Amino acid sequence: MGTKGKVIKCKAAIAWEAGKPLCIEEVEVAPPKAHEVRIQIIATSLCHTDATVIDSKFEGLAFPVIVGHEAAGIVESVGPGVTNFKPGDKVIPLYAPLCRKCKFCLSPLTNFCGKISNIKSPASDQQLMEDKTSRFTCKGKPVYHFLGTSTFSQYTVVSDTNLAKIDDDANLERVCLLGCGFSTGYGAAINNAKVTPGSTCAVFGLGGVGLSAVMGCKAAGASRIIGIDINSEKFAKAKALGATDCLNPRDLHKPIQEVIIELTEGGVDFALDCAGGSETMRAALDCTTAGWGSCTLIGVAAGSKGLTIFPEELIIGRTINGTFFGGWKSVDSIPKLVTDYKNKKFNLDALVTHTLPFDKISEAFDLMNQGKSIRTILTF
Amino acid sequence: MGTKGKVIKCKAAIAWEAGKPLCIEEVEVAPPKAHEVRIQIIATSLCHTDATVIDSKFEGLAFPVIVGHEAAGIVESVGPGVTNFKPGDKVIPLYAPLCRKCKFCLSPLTNFCGKISNIKSPASDQQLMEDKTSRFTCKGKPVYHFLGTSTFSQYTVVSDTNLAKIDDDANLERVCLLGCGFSTGYGAAINNAKVTPGSTCAVFGLGGVGLSAVMGCKAAGASRIIGIDINSEKFAKAKALGATDCLNPRDLHKPIQEVIIELTEGGVDFALDCAGGSETMRAALDCTTAGWGSCTLIGVAAGSKGLTIFPEELIIGRTINGTFFGGWKSVDSIPKLVTDYKNKKFNLDALVTHTLPFDKISEAFDLMNQGKSIRTILTF
Repeated sequence: MGTKGKVIKCKAAIAWEAGKPLCIEEVEVAPPKAHEVRIQIIATSLCHTDATVIDSKFEGLAFPVIVGHEAAGIVESVGPGVTNFKPGDKVIPLYAPLCRKCKFCLSPLTNFCGKISNIKSPASDQQLMEDKTSRFTCKGKPVYHFLGTSTFSQYTVVSDTNLAKIDDDANLERVCLLGCGFSTGYGAAINNAKVTPGSTCAVFGLGGVGLSAVMGCKAAGASRIIGIDINSEKFAKAKALGATDCLNPRDLHKPIQEVIIELTEGGVDFALDCAGGSETMRAALDCTTAGWGSCTLIGVAAGSKGLTIFPEELIIGRTINGTFFGGWKSVDSIPKLVTDYKNKKFNLDALVTHTLPFDKISEAFDLMNQGKSIRTILTF
Repeated sequence: MGTKGKVIKCKAAIAWEAGKPLCIEEVEVAPPKAHEVRIQIIATSLCHTDATVIDSKFEGLAFPVIVGHEAAGIVESVGPGVTNFKPGDKVIPLYAPLCRKCKFCLSPLTNFCGKISNIKSPASDQQLMEDKTSRFTCKGKPVYHFLGTSTFSQYTVVSDTNLAKIDDDANLERVCLLGCGFSTGYGAAINNAKVTPGSTCAVFGLGGVGLSAVMGCKAAGASRIIGIDINSEKFAKAKALGATDCLNPRDLHKPIQEVIIELTEGGVDFALDCAGGSETMRAALDCTTAGWGSCTLIGVAAGSKGLTIFPEELIIGRTINGTFFGGWKSVDSIPKLVTDYKNKKFNLDALVTHTLPFDKISEAFDLMNQGKSIRTILTF
């Protein structure tokens, strides 16, 4: 009996076209094909990327689409050839695949996977399953996937390379944050910046990713962590999570980078930009010390004019890099992070400011866009 | 009696003002003060930086000035407090100081020294000795130093933090190249890019620095080294020194980065830009592989519009860094490189295309600017 092998009708938030509000609709979710898993989403959060892509500020996204990429759920059924998952397993869908076959997956140097083909237009990557079809239908029309996850649906289908099995006792309303924001910020500090004990750090942007980066810097042993945001209301939480100083560029009489250079007698060892705008990237690079200053770009801002660098700025010993999903080998690392959360190695709870029923997804976007929430958990 | 403690009158090439030809003049070189060393320059080469600064394409250079920063000589006398050098020592002046006291010198992470104060305007750094005066006078006027070296003079005065003592049997007409070009390119590959055995590399610009970078890639064990230049006449030498492929962007029907990506099935592991222009930096970054591609900026081009980067380009696993004097801890490393040259670990001889008397310095600049020379050695 059950639903295995059958189309499931359920609730989803559909972006019918760019720039229009999401519509809660009934969608049909087809059974999983070979190496695919159908999941019941229990909790999903939302992040700025979701808002940005449905506003179509990133090029290349096909509509209609079901977005959402930070969630946790339970396996409903598996397609042929799936060996690592069974119905009832608790899981986290991952936009970062781990195919274990490509030269990237086989290398310890990166967590990037060759299944991501369209690196220049991440928004349009993984919008269809591997057979180039969609599992979603609404009002007779096929609906596109997003980042291989599409978690704004009560049921979704993902590739078995894009899914992590986690502890049976995991709290899905918290560990859903490991699907993107927390893992990205925390891992960027630990795996990409490779923050060192006793170092000084600057974290630009204190949203979910930035606060997670603060936690990562602290976990890595940084002795000074300067948090920067244009919304001072975020400072109390940042300090609770490990920031030693917080600065609001709008309260200062000189450029933020100059203030940081003075505070740190020459600049920080590690700067992490979680905002992605031209100004914050520039400030992040500028505030790093000569000799070994490291600037890690984490945020991607729509419509950004980028960061224009000159060799002179790097020749003095600086490095610029970025992070893809915090540098974690996704399928293998997320279960360990779930265990770390259970063991209180970091504080996901602090990131959750609101919990709402899925139907109130538009309210959740409003809270985020108004800077009133860090993370809102939506439950079905 | 000798010259110790006396002013020495000798020949030097003076840049009286920006954009004018160098003039060979008689200059007065004052005795060395505390912690300074006066050197007889035996051989000096010239590099594009010298040409660029006297054309005043870099801001901040004070005139009149004696440039030149790639040379070798013999100690004539030492000032009070100098303990590591004595008259007769063979030496190489270094624009990269090693004070052994600052936080940078005390760290293994960098070869940058805190004595370099004006990192935003390298041309204007070290234009005076530490007491803020010059040791050069010509026609009654003080003449500025350049990068702490000023090797276009038969005698010069340098700080004892900017000088390496080398083997007594070193060939000064060759090891002078360790003062800048060779050490920078070779070290950038080994110390900054950290080229790995079996890797693929692309080197943009096949002048003295680029050819040295090719040698560095080869010494580090790269299995494929692609040399790129718009002057195909440089290819024979590049291949002799280790390049496995050479490409002239002007001979191609598509952008050089696309050709390299096709040749390497996805991009190189390491790109080294020795040209410094916006186009070559862009091509260097673009041609690096996802996952772990590393782009090292070596060249600094006057009037460059820089490289505008977007987080998406780095998020896939790329890193951008730079090199300062090839990453070598200058005073400590150069003597070892002199020994390596003697032991034939690399081929400096191949870089020397011309040897001329010092008086023909203008001819040497013409050869360089016309792309006819790699390195010209000037002897007094």
